[in-house]
Amino acid sequence: MNVDGKHYRTIWLKETDDRVVQIIDQRPLPHQFIIEDLTTVTEVARAIKEMHIRGAGLVGATAGYGMYIAALHAPRNSVATFNAQLAEDAKILMATRPTAVNLEWAVKRQLAAMAEVANLTEKIQIAKTTAQAIADEDAEFCRRIGEHGVSLIEQISQRKPGQTINILTHCNAGWLAFVDYGTATAPVYAAHDKGIPVHVWVDETRPRNQGARLTAWELGQHGVPHTVIADNVGGHLMQHGQVDLVITGTDRTLYTGDVANKIGTYLKALAAKDNDVPFYVGLPSSTFDWEKRDGVAEIPIEQRDATEVKYIAGAHEGGTKTVLLTPENSPAANYAFDVTPARLVTALITERGICEASEDGILGLYPEKR
Amino acid sequence: MNVDGKHYRTIWLKETDDRVVQIIDQRPLPHQFIIEDLTTVTEVARAIKEMHIRGAGLVGATAGYGMYIAALHAPRNSVATFNAQLAEDAKILMATRPTAVNLEWAVKRQLAAMAEVANLTEKIQIAKTTAQAIADEDAEFCRRIGEHGVSLIEQISQRKPGQTINILTHCNAGWLAFVDYGTATAPVYAAHDKGIPVHVWVDETRPRNQGARLTAWELGQHGVPHTVIADNVGGHLMQHGQVDLVITGTDRTLYTGDVANKIGTYLKALAAKDNDVPFYVGLPSSTFDWEKRDGVAEIPIEQRDATEVKYIAGAHEGGTKTVLLTPENSPAANYAFDVTPARLVTALITERGICEASEDGILGLYPEKR
Repeated sequence: MNVDGKHYRTIWLKETDDRVVQIIDQRPLPHQFIIEDLTTVTEVARAIKEMHIRGAGLVGATAGYGMYIAALHAPRNSVATFNAQLAEDAKILMATRPTAVNLEWAVKRQLAAMAEVANLTEKIQIAKTTAQAIADEDAEFCRRIGEHGVSLIEQISQRKPGQTINILTHCNAGWLAFVDYGTATAPVYAAHDKGIPVHVWVDETRPRNQGARLTAWELGQHGVPHTVIADNVGGHLMQHGQVDLVITGTDRTLYTGDVANKIGTYLKALAAKDNDVPFYVGLPSSTFDWEKRDGVAEIPIEQRDATEVKYIAGAHEGGTKTVLLTPENSPAANYAFDVTPARLVTALITERGICEASEDGILGLYPEKR
Repeated sequence: MNVDGKHYRTIWLKETDDRVVQIIDQRPLPHQFIIEDLTTVTEVARAIKEMHIRGAGLVGATAGYGMYIAALHAPRNSVATFNAQLAEDAKILMATRPTAVNLEWAVKRQLAAMAEVANLTEKIQIAKTTAQAIADEDAEFCRRIGEHGVSLIEQISQRKPGQTINILTHCNAGWLAFVDYGTATAPVYAAHDKGIPVHVWVDETRPRNQGARLTAWELGQHGVPHTVIADNVGGHLMQHGQVDLVITGTDRTLYTGDVANKIGTYLKALAAKDNDVPFYVGLPSSTFDWEKRDGVAEIPIEQRDATEVKYIAGAHEGGTKTVLLTPENSPAANYAFDVTPARLVTALITERGICEASEDGILGLYPEKR
């Protein structure tokens, strides 16, 4: 999407040197926009591990480009030593975020693609086209989520012509988490680009504030009207008719329709239900879990460090300062995700279309999983 | 309650000089504990207006002591000039927080009490005893809320003997908001002091973080086990049986049972309902609204400055720093309260006892309002 009026993806090959991968370093956002060059596997691994980039789709795409860089730099004296180096680099990349499913998938796809050809120059070439394909597919899946999801916004818009459609979102399932468009935000960008007046209520999303930092920034850069709110506010807005629909992303969606997403999503889904506001979840099918049935009982919820609750960083006099919010000795707990039961989800928006958040609905769109 | 092992109220007359009112300056909490002397009406007015103290009960008590200080310093050449000065000081005090009901009530109670006697020395004496009485009554009402409310904790404790009872609270309806005990926290302190093992989940309560700053501090100082959590977390905890009951305070309670409290309370009430967790509200009867019937439709919700959402202050290297959390140009909205409909409230805990959050329940305890 746009930054300062120019179209960007979150990752790309440098225009003047296709041996260099460029990313938007997301850590200084929203206060500084910095493009970072990645030229070695070590740099790619650090960018993933230290979260210069984050988000399921983008982590996968970055790993894909990482394997292309690995191929560029692997020794060319023999196929065996080339492959040995690739195997080592694959391990390094896969160890950066061990729970990221897309990461392992992208690395293995690259290894399989390169194994298809014998010649080293061809291996490098195929690594490049595969990296591009992984990124293109991610963007295309998100674009389709936008295409399907915008119909929901159009329907509401037809009922209140000319009026602004208010959409609430939680966390960042925006283009910064993918290669382009995002999932939750894809229908919003599509509506905005079609000229439908939309406005987004951006949950700040404590404790890591992905909403206040990233979603607000990307919407602002693309020119989408939005307002940042504390996570406490959404229920009040829904009680007063100020939310037409909710769209969130998801970290894992069970084939029964239960949705694990950023902590706090469940509370917004409860408020949506209580006020007859439709609650949608945007996702590429790669986030489906085809094994588990009961989200609350079966999905393990990551607990992160308490310092993320007790301290917060922000801009201060041109730099960044981290301040303590609580009594120094008070303990804090930091659950990263919660589960929204399928009964609270109006529908899922996938790259194949919109379906009910139920076993029947999901398997109807993905019959090959029956 | 206790601070560093010593019992404090939030306001008192200085032990060595009863012409001086002392308060705990709540602004530097939880990072610094500072006792402030108030010796003039100007100082009292500033302490209320600039929120050195806050909370319905404490604002009322401070205004009561403010009128005592006014009486001490009013000219004694004639009753007329004495009264004229008092009337002026009353106006100054009432203008500090125009929407605080207890403030006006305390000032008028002082004026009426002083009007009962003719002699200036007696007027000053009665102003002193009335100020003390207002503070004592506030503490006593909160103590009784604790006495009634602790029975609810005891009942749960009997079902799981020896096990810790987990209580979730939102914002600060603690002793710092009153003269002592608090409302939501009164049953917690009572249970803790009786030796029932309790643990409090403290919602940080964005954007002003009264939970993370004040509730965590006061619980910690009194030795009550507690854990600070982001406002997003309560629903997840309830889904996993980690909350036995919720107790919050209230800023205004309709006689129909609808509760206006700090923004985000409604979301926790929804989660409590969804998980069969009892949701209680502690209140002195002074917060009842005997006129309005429908909270969502009729209670006006204050909107505060967007800077409270976009910026946050915290401790940094021995001082306090304020940092920017959002893109500088992103708008933010800051609704201060929301309304929890009576249907989500299990019961109210008042100084007279526990009642259903309904017209019948409330008028049953307060039959004089029928």
